[in-house]
Amino acid sequence: MSVATHFIAIDWGTSHLRAYLCLVSAYQPVQVIERVNNFGVKKIQSDFKTTLLESITPWIEQHGVLDILMIGQIGSSIGWKETQYLPCPVAPSSVISAGVNFVCNGNPITIFPGLSCQTLNGLFDAMRGEEMQLLGWLNLNPLHQQGRHLICMPGTHTKWVLIENGIVQVFKTALTGELYDLLSNHSVLIQQTTSKAEFDFDAFNQGAQFIIDSDIDNFSHGLFSVRSEQLFGDTSAKQAHCYLSGLLIAHDVKAALQAKEWDLSTLPPVTIIGSNHLSQCFAKVLNYCQISTKLSSAYEATLTGFEVVYRTLNPSTTAPLATPYKAKT
Amino acid sequence: MSVATHFIAIDWGTSHLRAYLCLVSAYQPVQVIERVNNFGVKKIQSDFKTTLLESITPWIEQHGVLDILMIGQIGSSIGWKETQYLPCPVAPSSVISAGVNFVCNGNPITIFPGLSCQTLNGLFDAMRGEEMQLLGWLNLNPLHQQGRHLICMPGTHTKWVLIENGIVQVFKTALTGELYDLLSNHSVLIQQTTSKAEFDFDAFNQGAQFIIDSDIDNFSHGLFSVRSEQLFGDTSAKQAHCYLSGLLIAHDVKAALQAKEWDLSTLPPVTIIGSNHLSQCFAKVLNYCQISTKLSSAYEATLTGFEVVYRTLNPSTTAPLATPYKAKT
Repeated sequence: MSVATHFIAIDWGTSHLRAYLCLVSAYQPVQVIERVNNFGVKKIQSDFKTTLLESITPWIEQHGVLDILMIGQIGSSIGWKETQYLPCPVAPSSVISAGVNFVCNGNPITIFPGLSCQTLNGLFDAMRGEEMQLLGWLNLNPLHQQGRHLICMPGTHTKWVLIENGIVQVFKTALTGELYDLLSNHSVLIQQTTSKAEFDFDAFNQGAQFIIDSDIDNFSHGLFSVRSEQLFGDTSAKQAHCYLSGLLIAHDVKAALQAKEWDLSTLPPVTIIGSNHLSQCFAKVLNYCQISTKLSSAYEATLTGFEVVYRTLNPSTTAPLATPYKAKT
Repeated sequence: MSVATHFIAIDWGTSHLRAYLCLVSAYQPVQVIERVNNFGVKKIQSDFKTTLLESITPWIEQHGVLDILMIGQIGSSIGWKETQYLPCPVAPSSVISAGVNFVCNGNPITIFPGLSCQTLNGLFDAMRGEEMQLLGWLNLNPLHQQGRHLICMPGTHTKWVLIENGIVQVFKTALTGELYDLLSNHSVLIQQTTSKAEFDFDAFNQGAQFIIDSDIDNFSHGLFSVRSEQLFGDTSAKQAHCYLSGLLIAHDVKAALQAKEWDLSTLPPVTIIGSNHLSQCFAKVLNYCQISTKLSSAYEATLTGFEVVYRTLNPSTTAPLATPYKAKT
């Protein structure tokens, strides 16, 4: 017999906690009933337990004890319970049996680990949270489990992930989003903050094309053009933000094109899993470099990942879907 | 007849005001009698006049009305009186006759302009303050006025300046110092601040050699190694600061090596004008790239520049030196 059951999925990162009250039932895709945000691991005002209960107590009161599935920096050395990274090559589904379990006010909590790898230059890399999106994406379409795919995951840190037959082989991190925040809000490059209302894609393209079309020296020595074009050109502060975004994203994309860990000319279209705006920005630059792209929703991928985890850990409560999971977004 | 006279030299930048009470006399190098620091253009607690008088009133009371020579962001659009940049190619001595003059409490003030240029890629660049160091350096040795020289001026922003027969031809700015500050104090790369006491040159060299020996993708995708080497390697937070410094300075130097505006293989040793520590760091990386270097004190260059300006504007008060100026440091 299969019944509809609720569980709580939480992506608890450095800056934000994002909790989802989910409903799963046999032969029905997961549904998000409610969602709530709270402080991230480095921003919490009290302790982890208090912050968690603030967020989910209304759901517990309504539905009783619930399974709580967590990913992100909450499993890091600065988090609640540390989970060891799973080294690549590894299937994202491996995290399902590698969670750390404990109980909070009667509710069973599982924190799932991130992934680690070593790139060709011998340096280490790591992710926490993105692995759940990868698990979800792999389960959105049986074709995703076959062949080689390069996944681009824009965010505070861009993750470029090479997947072969469902196994994460290697990935590389770029600080693009964090650099954009630091340089656009805390550097001499731009003196005024502007609303993100209308994004100026012309200015973005100008910055991106400058990097893509130019030589190595133009990133280090080109960043200052964000300021000098305001001093001597007719670039507004708002345009400067978009121009800077173009410079940084193009520098990131150019690095991915030149990475020795994969050869983009032999891969299918790059899959971009991210927010709508950032995904569009990365797609524009990749397309400008003659690389075709497919966009996939980070929200859908994350929830589908949690759904896969929950159904695997609770086979008796809900029958697995015969068809690929489709999260309702 | 020549007499000893005092004047005030002020480098008033974005973050700091640095004022020097100077004594010049015939056939004697300039002497700094006293120095005082105060708030920079973007940090002042009151207005420019009040901040200036706070700094120099004791000197005025002791010596009466004094000439005040100023350089830096105080002459920018966010400064006290705006001075227009002098476009390259230009001799640094051209700033002497291009100052903006006004009077403050009876003391004649001159703010001297910065320099601007366009690099080969068509983008603009600008400097305010460094031009006085260049003027000073050119006057420290007659040989500096002959032939082509590449000057490296490390600081919050690195300036790479090509001088030919005493004329500044072109220059390029890198945000290296500012990026180091943002990434080492405000990013996820390093969680702890550490004392700058003992600098770990082994960690610095490790970061520098990683960038110099590697491909373009390793800056964008290599920055994260500052964090991952702390997670998985045995790198301490202190070592991470030095490793990051190596990454950033090497990225800057590598860009200078590849700049199309000059060919380092045809130039004499690169002259580095900066603070002792930063100059050593840049010299180490340049030497690692088989480029020889000469170090010159930024303090001496700045004061010699002010001395040249003062003597040129006041020929009657002090006879010019027959020999090259030597500022007492």
